[in-house]
Amino acid sequence: MKKTLVIALGGNALGKTPLEQLRLVENTASAIVDLIEEGYDVVIGHGNGPQVGMVNNAFEKSHQIDEKIPDMPFPECGAMTQGYIGYHLQQAIGRELKNRKIDRPVVTLVTQVEVDPKDPAFQDPSKPIGSFYSKEEAEAIAKRTGYVFTEDAGRGYRRVVPSPEPISIVELETVKKLVEDGCVVITVGGGGIPVIRKDGYYEGVAAVIDKDKASAKLAEDLHAEKLLILTAVEQVCLNYGKDDEKRLSDLSQEDARRYMDEGHFARGSMLPKVESCIRFVEHAENGSAIISSLDKAKEALQGKTGTLIHK
Amino acid sequence: MKKTLVIALGGNALGKTPLEQLRLVENTASAIVDLIEEGYDVVIGHGNGPQVGMVNNAFEKSHQIDEKIPDMPFPECGAMTQGYIGYHLQQAIGRELKNRKIDRPVVTLVTQVEVDPKDPAFQDPSKPIGSFYSKEEAEAIAKRTGYVFTEDAGRGYRRVVPSPEPISIVELETVKKLVEDGCVVITVGGGGIPVIRKDGYYEGVAAVIDKDKASAKLAEDLHAEKLLILTAVEQVCLNYGKDDEKRLSDLSQEDARRYMDEGHFARGSMLPKVESCIRFVEHAENGSAIISSLDKAKEALQGKTGTLIHK
Repeated sequence: MKKTLVIALGGNALGKTPLEQLRLVENTASAIVDLIEEGYDVVIGHGNGPQVGMVNNAFEKSHQIDEKIPDMPFPECGAMTQGYIGYHLQQAIGRELKNRKIDRPVVTLVTQVEVDPKDPAFQDPSKPIGSFYSKEEAEAIAKRTGYVFTEDAGRGYRRVVPSPEPISIVELETVKKLVEDGCVVITVGGGGIPVIRKDGYYEGVAAVIDKDKASAKLAEDLHAEKLLILTAVEQVCLNYGKDDEKRLSDLSQEDARRYMDEGHFARGSMLPKVESCIRFVEHAENGSAIISSLDKAKEALQGKTGTLIHK
Repeated sequence: MKKTLVIALGGNALGKTPLEQLRLVENTASAIVDLIEEGYDVVIGHGNGPQVGMVNNAFEKSHQIDEKIPDMPFPECGAMTQGYIGYHLQQAIGRELKNRKIDRPVVTLVTQVEVDPKDPAFQDPSKPIGSFYSKEEAEAIAKRTGYVFTEDAGRGYRRVVPSPEPISIVELETVKKLVEDGCVVITVGGGGIPVIRKDGYYEGVAAVIDKDKASAKLAEDLHAEKLLILTAVEQVCLNYGKDDEKRLSDLSQEDARRYMDEGHFARGSMLPKVESCIRFVEHAENGSAIISSLDKAKEALQGKTGTLIHK
């Protein structure tokens, strides 16, 4: 019997330039096809931090020197990265499937994810995107556009956007159908293109949805057996980077929440991953979540490494 | 009984900037939903000329002033426009369907289209893309990158890429499934991301596939009943723009071919459209093709206007 596995791919599985990305996705594809060979129906969510920054910067900078190039709103930049990353991923996974004589289509869906305009994140934009500016430049742009800027660790001023919670995946029914049909589906790229409902209709909004949270929501809505969040480390740790660092192999959702509340996991790094796992496990009837690294993905699913979070 | 209709949307249905595009797709969506209400299963191909030029220019220009922004290869620029245009189209069509209380999912598939590396077009790159350069700049870039440039009507030098024939749509089986499931599918955006087969595997190539030809190939492979090519004029004309201009309502494929051979249709404009219609009609068992404008699409499908090309 087939089991559905939602994978959240980190930015380290992709790359900063198109050439680097083409090279890195080969490795990523190989790890993903390993999991398909393990008997999973695989659905892939992925990040787009460096890539959406790149697209945003390209338009920002070229618009400054050539006004024929338009300002590119943030949701549209995200849509571009879904095409750009999806293309490389689906090509590389298709190649690896063919290598191993597995006949499965691979597709990327342009995917919108609904957020709540009343989400408190909209009152506290915190996710930095795009180029660095001087204080004067930032103030001038803020005045012209209404963008919010903050000082970024001494490196200059950067635009910040809200990071609201995903509340529904607009193209969910299609993802479901494609999974049932045996497709490998790439979706919620970059956490999805963030949209709000206005007078009943969807409309893009400048925001970034955390890709682990969007993938967890996807896993919940697909009633997936497993959520696998891939990151730079093989296992989640307590006292990470300290002398008494302790690797975690197996955690109940209560333990995970307790460690989270004790502040063991870094904001913007391990915290949203653990939080996403907990949320999925809480909502899933039978699902469990794993955090591990790309090169240990198979062993992690076999229970040999990684951090398993379960009911 | 449902009939499949493949629509090839021209650039005039989209727009040069994101704001213009958002506005124009409303109108486009309304015309498309009219056709869905007429009882068609609609599959949408679209152009990306202005949009891929915009993305290409944004990366070219910003790369020149900031080397952290990478050069963006042409197939990747095309993939970005599929995300960008698909997002707006699927959002606008979704909205219009909801308006009319029609329950159908709308999805955009990132789509690769295979071309033949031996296609003679590769020996004769002719499709201009990206920015204008001076002769000296063009020569310097050509030396560094191997790009081919030609002088463009006194406006400067522009890169040209080949425009090969589409030979297969990589994601075809998924398009078929989604159409059978009742989805409105947006695919082969910009004619598809052009790929060649190398050692059995797909790989992107710098080229532009004509979107009408890609849509005709799609219609053929889907065994569509109708191919509808939307353009700026309501009907195809003989002696277009002259005193003895004659509008054509109904053409057999033989007549169409004869007029084509007589040079009635402009290269890069009406010619590929008529050619695409002929090719579809020749290959289709029962299919016919129509060329008309967006605002006359419904009347054209009802046989009240447009140019019908049939067996």
